[in-house]
Amino acid sequence: MRALKSIREFIEEGGKLFHPGISLDCVIFGFHDNQLKVLLLKMEHTDDWALPGGFVYKEEDLEAAATRVLQERTGINNIFLQQFHVFGNPSRSDREYQSNWLRKWNIPAGKGSWLLNRFVTVGFYALVEFSHVTPTPDNISVASEWHHLHNIDNLFMDHRKILDTALETLRWQLNHQPIGYNLLPDKFTMPELLTLYETILGKKLDRRNFRRRMNSYGILRKLKEKRKGCAHKAPYLYSFDLRKYQKALQEGLQGRW
Amino acid sequence: MRALKSIREFIEEGGKLFHPGISLDCVIFGFHDNQLKVLLLKMEHTDDWALPGGFVYKEEDLEAAATRVLQERTGINNIFLQQFHVFGNPSRSDREYQSNWLRKWNIPAGKGSWLLNRFVTVGFYALVEFSHVTPTPDNISVASEWHHLHNIDNLFMDHRKILDTALETLRWQLNHQPIGYNLLPDKFTMPELLTLYETILGKKLDRRNFRRRMNSYGILRKLKEKRKGCAHKAPYLYSFDLRKYQKALQEGLQGRW
Repeated sequence: MRALKSIREFIEEGGKLFHPGISLDCVIFGFHDNQLKVLLLKMEHTDDWALPGGFVYKEEDLEAAATRVLQERTGINNIFLQQFHVFGNPSRSDREYQSNWLRKWNIPAGKGSWLLNRFVTVGFYALVEFSHVTPTPDNISVASEWHHLHNIDNLFMDHRKILDTALETLRWQLNHQPIGYNLLPDKFTMPELLTLYETILGKKLDRRNFRRRMNSYGILRKLKEKRKGCAHKAPYLYSFDLRKYQKALQEGLQGRW
Repeated sequence: MRALKSIREFIEEGGKLFHPGISLDCVIFGFHDNQLKVLLLKMEHTDDWALPGGFVYKEEDLEAAATRVLQERTGINNIFLQQFHVFGNPSRSDREYQSNWLRKWNIPAGKGSWLLNRFVTVGFYALVEFSHVTPTPDNISVASEWHHLHNIDNLFMDHRKILDTALETLRWQLNHQPIGYNLLPDKFTMPELLTLYETILGKKLDRRNFRRRMNSYGILRKLKEKRKGCAHKAPYLYSFDLRKYQKALQEGLQGRW
């Protein structure tokens, strides 16, 4: 597998290197400042933002391709990564839009036409610890930034639908996947955990019931430390008991949210 | 979209008609004689059995392609159908095996080479009411038959892995999808529902706890009729209260199995 160094090389040679019909798009979630955020790339030559994504080399494993893309865009290995849905509507790409975009790169006519083929895209979602990520644009982007979930527009192609489907998936996997563990730092407060759940579920939860229920799972360890630098009463810090968390998730955490 | 009539036409012309990198495979579950069964096709010119599957026409929607394949293989429309995983390992197909198989059809050299390309396959699972299905082979198969889940071998390519992944998916979606409703006939007995759950979960459940819990969900209607023709004490028949079932599934049925 060879790395593609320049954008011209990517556009002109990609058709020989990549699988002709499969792409992937990654919804990378991080939690920071008590907000659930998504990593987006500002594309060059358009006003649109895109989910980090890419193509699959002809002999590359699909999951390996997703891991590669995530590593390149975040600097992290060992990311919690799940494929969640395939987007296979033939009208998901807009050839006219893409032809116009290609023209802006001054690529010789005929080159890059592979990009106008129909790509079925596999959606992956990733959960990362915000502070570990170094957002890095790819070769067709000018910036890579975290966006607050409720403050996103101008998304490229069907990326809004991919993002919404990822969020729906998180919602119903809350009781089955270590979502809190992967998004929160090692030590966190109960209000932070509550906010994360509220953001994913898209609704307010009762603070006291939430605390009672979380404690009843036996997956949290209350630490002796408190959060420093708080204006009000300092909240205790917690961490996950990973062994118990994973055991509980195998059978699914009990109850509805 | 044109229909492909003969196997020769399929092999010789398919490369022009189908998307060059995507296929689909369907795990069709049915429940009969108190057993969970899977519909398999006996392939011509080999000893292998295959999951019903197919290719996607160049401008065909992926979900529409799955619906088409299921309709052709079962005679049913309106099937409960879910994509569950993408199988994207480049070594999933075995070129030598497939070249040998192609040779047995006496296709002119060079024709049909599109079948040796790398196909990433999307797994769908379907839940059907057994009695409504007319198993129908496709043009590369000699038979289409239901197989008891515990009595399956000689599966083509990675179809064993696809089947196992579908079953795992059923297992953890039991509380989120109308699995019982789609697999059982309109009227069923509590022992039949219990057996279905036991087969999917791969373990014995306590009969009385199961009955108590199922009743507690409020999704079953106990009918006045009993099952006729039973040697022992005739069991009552039940049906699902679809409205309540769907409402309960939206938030997920409570509890572990």
